[in-house]
Parts: sequence; structure tokens; C-alpha cells
Amino acid sequence: MALERTASMSIILRLEIDKSLAHFGGILSSISAAGGDIVAIDVIKVSKQRTVRDITVNVYDQAHAQQVVDVVSRLAGVKLINVSDRTFLVHLGGKLEVQPKMPIKNREELSRVYTPGVARVCQAIAEDPSKAFSLTIKRNTVAVVSDGSAVLGLGDVGPYAAMPVMEGKAMLFKQLAGVDAFPICLDTKDTEEIIRIVKAIAPAFGGINLEDISAPRCFEIEERLKEELDIPVFHDDQHGTAVVMLAGLLNALKLVGKRLDEIKVVVCGIGAAGTACTKMLLSAGVQNIIGVDRDGAIVRGKRYDNPMWNWYAERTNPDNVSGSLSDVIEGADVFIGVSAPGVLKVEDIKKMARDPIVFAMANPIPEIDPEEAEPYVRVLATGRSDLPNQINNVLCFPGIFRGALDCRAREINEEMKLAAAKAIASVVSDEELNEYYIIPSVFNTKVVERVREAVIEAAVRTGVARRDTKD
Amino acid sequence: MALERTASMSIILRLEIDKSLAHFGGILSSISAAGGDIVAIDVIKVSKQRTVRDITVNVYDQAHAQQVVDVVSRLAGVKLINVSDRTFLVHLGGKLEVQPKMPIKNREELSRVYTPGVARVCQAIAEDPSKAFSLTIKRNTVAVVSDGSAVLGLGDVGPYAAMPVMEGKAMLFKQLAGVDAFPICLDTKDTEEIIRIVKAIAPAFGGINLEDISAPRCFEIEERLKEELDIPVFHDDQHGTAVVMLAGLLNALKLVGKRLDEIKVVVCGIGAAGTACTKMLLSAGVQNIIGVDRDGAIVRGKRYDNPMWNWYAERTNPDNVSGSLSDVIEGADVFIGVSAPGVLKVEDIKKMARDPIVFAMANPIPEIDPEEAEPYVRVLATGRSDLPNQINNVLCFPGIFRGALDCRAREINEEMKLAAAKAIASVVSDEELNEYYIIPSVFNTKVVERVREAVIEAAVRTGVARRDTKD
Repeated sequence: MALERTASMSIILRLEIDKSLAHFGGILSSISAAGGDIVAIDVIKVSKQRTVRDITVNVYDQAHAQQVVDVVSRLAGVKLINVSDRTFLVHLGGKLEVQPKMPIKNREELSRVYTPGVARVCQAIAEDPSKAFSLTIKRNTVAVVSDGSAVLGLGDVGPYAAMPVMEGKAMLFKQLAGVDAFPICLDTKDTEEIIRIVKAIAPAFGGINLEDISAPRCFEIEERLKEELDIPVFHDDQHGTAVVMLAGLLNALKLVGKRLDEIKVVVCGIGAAGTACTKMLLSAGVQNIIGVDRDGAIVRGKRYDNPMWNWYAERTNPDNVSGSLSDVIEGADVFIGVSAPGVLKVEDIKKMARDPIVFAMANPIPEIDPEEAEPYVRVLATGRSDLPNQINNVLCFPGIFRGALDCRAREINEEMKLAAAKAIASVVSDEELNEYYIIPSVFNTKVVERVREAVIEAAVRTGVARRDTKD
Repeated sequence: MALERTASMSIILRLEIDKSLAHFGGILSSISAAGGDIVAIDVIKVSKQRTVRDITVNVYDQAHAQQVVDVVSRLAGVKLINVSDRTFLVHLGGKLEVQPKMPIKNREELSRVYTPGVARVCQAIAEDPSKAFSLTIKRNTVAVVSDGSAVLGLGDVGPYAAMPVMEGKAMLFKQLAGVDAFPICLDTKDTEEIIRIVKAIAPAFGGINLEDISAPRCFEIEERLKEELDIPVFHDDQHGTAVVMLAGLLNALKLVGKRLDEIKVVVCGIGAAGTACTKMLLSAGVQNIIGVDRDGAIVRGKRYDNPMWNWYAERTNPDNVSGSLSDVIEGADVFIGVSAPGVLKVEDIKKMARDPIVFAMANPIPEIDPEEAEPYVRVLATGRSDLPNQINNVLCFPGIFRGALDCRAREINEEMKLAAAKAIASVVSDEELNEYYIIPSVFNTKVVERVREAVIEAAVRTGVARRDTKD
């Protein structure tokens, strides 16, 4: 797969151009010749002799950016005033602010919002803590909690470096679903400490979104918090991925005319996301799932150091087949990859049943080069935004929390996740459905509303809703 | 002092009035006769036969509200549709929201703000954590941390009931100083646990405002966090009060022509605020301070159970005088009260030196009825918003954190607090200064800017600033 010049690596060159010595067309040609993709030009200042212009250039990577800068620096009559990185510019000063819902215009208003009037509101909550849901931000606020131990493809970069991701997530929560989310990045990796801290800060929040916490700690942390808190706790890397994967799979199966209970699925990469995808598939009714990790298929009768794999072996692989990915993929209908680049080969796909469905979701580089896989699959989905069928958590977390908050759910259970998956799938109509469109875009405004309704319905049906939204 | 009908207890009566049976003037008369103070009337709906109107009425308290409601309910031709409490209305759904600074309009923008582009920003911070100040919300964000153990005059109402106060505080931070503040209400009262939690959540924040945590835990928590964190930690109940008290005192002394190093000050109520006021007075150069609590003056040579009092005895009361408040107030120039209603008598004031300065700051009811004290004092200040000279923390915390954040101060030290006090005092010009105007209004926009500048100057001078704001 050819390397792409993406908008996420894009530089802005501010140039002062001496009109008598250089002409603008020549400058642009030089940038293009150096491989830079010019996407915008802005005129900053013009005088008789000189002009100052901003040229926005997409490049491959940082080394390539330097090459483009070097080329421009050597041009006669061109003075390079400044190089800025567009991505860094949007992160400058952070991406969130905390806004009062109304201004405090005078003493009278101050006395209602703050002392002395606020005392009566405090007292009302002290007498009945459930009033926190109506009289504080709890009703609409979610904590995005991370310890920075498994951030994107970067790994353990720590809580400071995790902040830009958590802020981005909070932006999406607000923009897509009106949920107020605040990033809590923890300077500890101790499981018990994280559990204690999240429990202690919970009063302000109506939900907890766990994010980018490494396995196996993420399982224990989520399990325990679910037990010990009465608000939804949702590890998005696990369940968000699983819900959106299932949404895509439901539509892919519709296309190929196969049923959940008759397909054979190989899940590759049995970490946090792989386990969650498997649980979701089991809940949805899939019978034959084979999990594969570095040492091959996970089988009963073997003792694994990873306790999750022992759990996994008990619940999957009904025929207890063993062997490598290449062995067990024989006759499979679906490949679900949450592992690493290059793990899946064309030869493996050729062994699959008719109309292979391949979800190669490793980020940022899929398990198989999409161009290579393309001729041999019926449906291909990845985590990439520049290809069709992007399996993106952003389709799930805003709507699922919107629904959970609106009905004051105590938890987000399997039924609610299943309902969310079906709701996401339903946004693609039968007429629209095709190999390149099994999942809606993250900007499709129908998604949040459909997911919200379905999640509330499931929460009410399973008895975890504390509020009837019909009120 | 007469009980006041304040705007913080104000109800809205929605009435449907049958025009043939009742006339509006009569209804208003009945409300007035019941003691209700009508402050607003809104017409909601009008038809030939009926009108629906909202009448906003200030009342004394909840019992009085019920009396007014009862009177209106009995009127012929009047149907009471709804009674709402204006104070509760402004708190409905909470008072804060978390807003993205810019919208994400398309895939390209999403790829910069979130994955994959955000990965480069994360990496830059992982390589140099100090970049968190420029690339995350840390630069402008303060945690308002409470365990709800000493909320206003209410006491230990817990973390849920504390939220409305912390939200109000966050509103003021943003409106007055542009600081993004987020409430963290902790469901634990364990000192060590609180210290651990605040340290763990610190990566997202550029400062920690401790609030409404009871003594003596508040001392240990603040001390330890100051040592163990490299961002400012400020217990507002202590230092905010102390800074604003000193600001008022500086101006009051100017009026009476006395110097800090020659006055005798009695501080009444040696808890968190009293200790902080005393430290502030010592830093400002006051030599003769006598602390008084329930058992009388705090003296050297006695062992106190409260370790803070032993510390206090060592540093105050140079003549080691003992006795009750009435005894030690003899000849005092200044009374600083942070204790309880009714503690100070007119007889005590009569024993003070010429031009008595009385700061009766107990909330919500001062140490002496202001009307009673008035004839015998030269300058009187209280914590009340309906009287002149309100000593209100709101004058301090927005500006002091604004300054600390802008110069990336490692801490808020004594010099910075002193500078803040002088800056607040300076807002009242010599021409404006008089017995009823020693301290600016909380809505005076000059306050934050003056405090900010003074605090930055002091931070740079004392070597705790990490950034030169002249850049």
C-alpha cells in the first residue's frame, strides 16, 4: 500500500517573497517537485515589492516536511518566516473549556448561584442524594479516565501525553451527543489505586468512560467499578470497538446472505478489544468463534498464563481446533483482526468460505494491505478513515452514553450494547447497503439519535433505567 | 438585626386568573399583606376569560413561602398552576458545561484533532512533559477539590451536596478571570487518600483550589500537596479569606492613620481561616496578634490538643496575655472575627483603642449585629453582600490563579498572597476611600487585572515562575 500524504501531517510555510527576484508559480512548482501536496494558499500581506503568503502543504512525515522546508529555504528571493504544523496548531492551549451555562450579572444572581442561596440547594441534595442528578452537572457529565498506558498505537506514554486524546474524545462527546465530558488522566498504574480514585471522584459524574488502559488491568478495573458504582462504566477500547464491529458485521452478513448462528468467525488478537469483540459476538448469537493469538488458536485443555485466555478457551472453539491462523482460517466466513500489521496473508483469505468478510482493524496499519486483499474478499472493513467501511468507536460512545445518561442507567449492559450495534447498522438502509457501505459515516447525524433510543429502550427493558424518559 | 427577604429565597407563582371572579390588583394586595415582596410580574398567556401570569415573590424562608402559597390558593377565581423556586431553577441540570474550543467539521479536521494526527502531539509531550502546558488544557485549568466536609455554614454535607458550591465557584473562575475550573468532589475523608487522589489527577491541571475541607485535615492536605506537586495548591477558605481581609485592613488602616507594625489585633476563632489570617498578618508585618478561641486567648506554656494551637502560641501573643475575648480586646486596634454569631459585644468594642476596626466575618451571621456595632466602630466589615465592605473570597481566587497560571508558577507563596492583597486594596483610590468603601465590589473588573499583574511580578521575583509573560 502506497504511503499517503494525510491531512494529519500538514505544514504551513509563511513566506516573504521578493517579487523582483522570485515568482509565485515557480515556488509552487518547487514544492510540488519535492513531493509536497499544496492544499491551500493564503495572502497575508501585499506591498509593491514584497508579498507574504501562507502555503499549506500536506507531506508524508516529519522527514519529508524537512525536505520541503529545505527546498523552499534555498530559493532566491524567498524568505521563510515561519513553519507551523497544522496539527499542533489545533492542539495549542488545549481543546476544551469549562463554560458557565449562564452569566452572573449582578449581586442578586450571585446570591442565587453561589452563597448564600446555594446553601438550600446543597441541603436538598444532602437530604436526598438522588437529587444530584437534577441539581448538579452529574446528569450530563462523563469522566474520560485514562492512565495513559495504552494510548493509540503508541503504548505507555503516560498521563500527560494521553491528554490530547482524551480532550479530543471529550470534544466528540459534546459535538456529537451534547454530553459534557472531562478528561481525567491518572498519574498511577496501580489497579487498586485507579479503582479507588474513580470511585472517589464519581459524585460529579453520571458515567465513566475508561480509555487506553492496558490489558489485563483494564478488565479488573472495569469489572470492579461496574460492581461498586451505580453509574455506567464503559471501557471504550473494548466495547466501543465490539459494538461498531458487530454493527458492520450485521450489515455485511445481510449482503452475503448468512446468519449469525451459522457462521465461523476467526478473531485474531485476543487482548482487550479481541475479548470484547468475542463476547459481543457470543451475545449476538454466534456459535463458532476461534480465537487466535501469537501461539495459535486458543484451545481447551491448555493452561494459559493470561487468565483471560483460560476464560476464553472455555467459551469458544466448540470443535477445539488447534494450529496457526493459516490452519484455523480454513472455511471461516469472517475474519476479525485486532492484532498487528501483516498478520493476515492473501493465501489465508483464499482458504475462507465463499464471500469472505475481512475486518482488518489494526491501527493505524491493518492486518493486511487493503489493496492486496481487495480482489479476494467480498467485504473489507478497516480502522482507516481514508478507506470505505471504517470501524470507528466514534459511532458508538456518544450515542450509548447519551442514552444511558438520559434514562439514568445504572450500567451499560450486554443488551444495551447489542441494541446500539443494531441501531448503528440500521442507519444504512437496504437500498444503500453495498460492499463499500456497510457502516455509516461518523458525521451521520442519525447515528446518535438511533443509538440513544435503542439504548434507552434496552435499559428500560432490562430494568437498569432509573428515569422514564417519557416523563 | 431584622430578618431580610433576600433574592436567594424567591418563589415564582404561576397563576391562572379568571377575570370575571378575581382582579389582579387584589391578588397582589393579598400577597403583600402576607408579607411577600413582589419583584416581578410576567404575562404568560391571555384569553378573553383568563390570563396566566408568573409572579416572582421574595420571601423570608421556606415556611413563609408556604404561607404566601396558602393565601394565594384560597383566593376565589385563582388557580395556582405551579410554584417554582428561583434559586433551584438556576441550578437545574447543573451550572457548567464542557465545550470544545472549535467544531470538528469534517474528516480532515477529525484526523488532526483525534486519531491519527493526535499521535504526534502525544509523542511530543511524552518526549517533553513540560509541553503539556502548551498542548493541553493544563495551561488554563484548575481543579476545585472538596470532600464536602465543611461546606459554607452547613458542615459535613458530603461530596454530592458540595457540588452546587463547587460549580458556582467554577462559574466565577471563568466569568471573572477566564480560568477553566472543574469541580472534583471526593467521596472520601481520608487525608492520605485525598492527597494520593489529587496527586494522581494533577496531570490535567495547572492548579489545585482546595475548598470546604474541614480542619485540621485541610492543613495536612494542603501542606503535603504543596510539597509533592509542582503546580499551585491553594486552600481558598484559608488563604482567600486572609488575602481579602488584609486588603480591607490595609485600606482601613489608611483611613485611621495607623501602621501595621504598631497595631494590636485580636483574631477570634482559630480554625482554618483564623490561622491563615494570622499568618497573613504576620507576613504583612503585624507584631502584636492575640488569638482567641472558646477557652480564651491562646498562650505559650499551655499544651493544646489541637497541634495548630501549639504552633500558634509560639508565634503570637508577644506579651502572653491570657483571659477571655472581653479581657484581651482591651486596647486592641483591630478585631478579626472568623468564629460564630454573637461572640462580640458592644461592651467589648467600647474597650478597644480609638477608631476601632471590626471585621466580623462569620457567615452568614456576623459576630455582632452590624446595626448594634455601627455607632461604636470606625470601620465595620462583614461577609455579607447586603452591607458595605464585604470581605469576599471572590475578590481573590480568580485573579490569583489567573496570575499563577499565566506565569506557570510552581506554587502560590506568601509574597504572591501579599501582592494580591495590596493589589485588591489599590483598586480603591484615595479619593474613593471612606468608612463604607474599603474594599472593591466583586464585580469590579479592575480587580482581576491588578491582582494578576501583582501576582506575576511576585512570582517572578521569588523565582517560582516558569514562564516569562513578556514573551
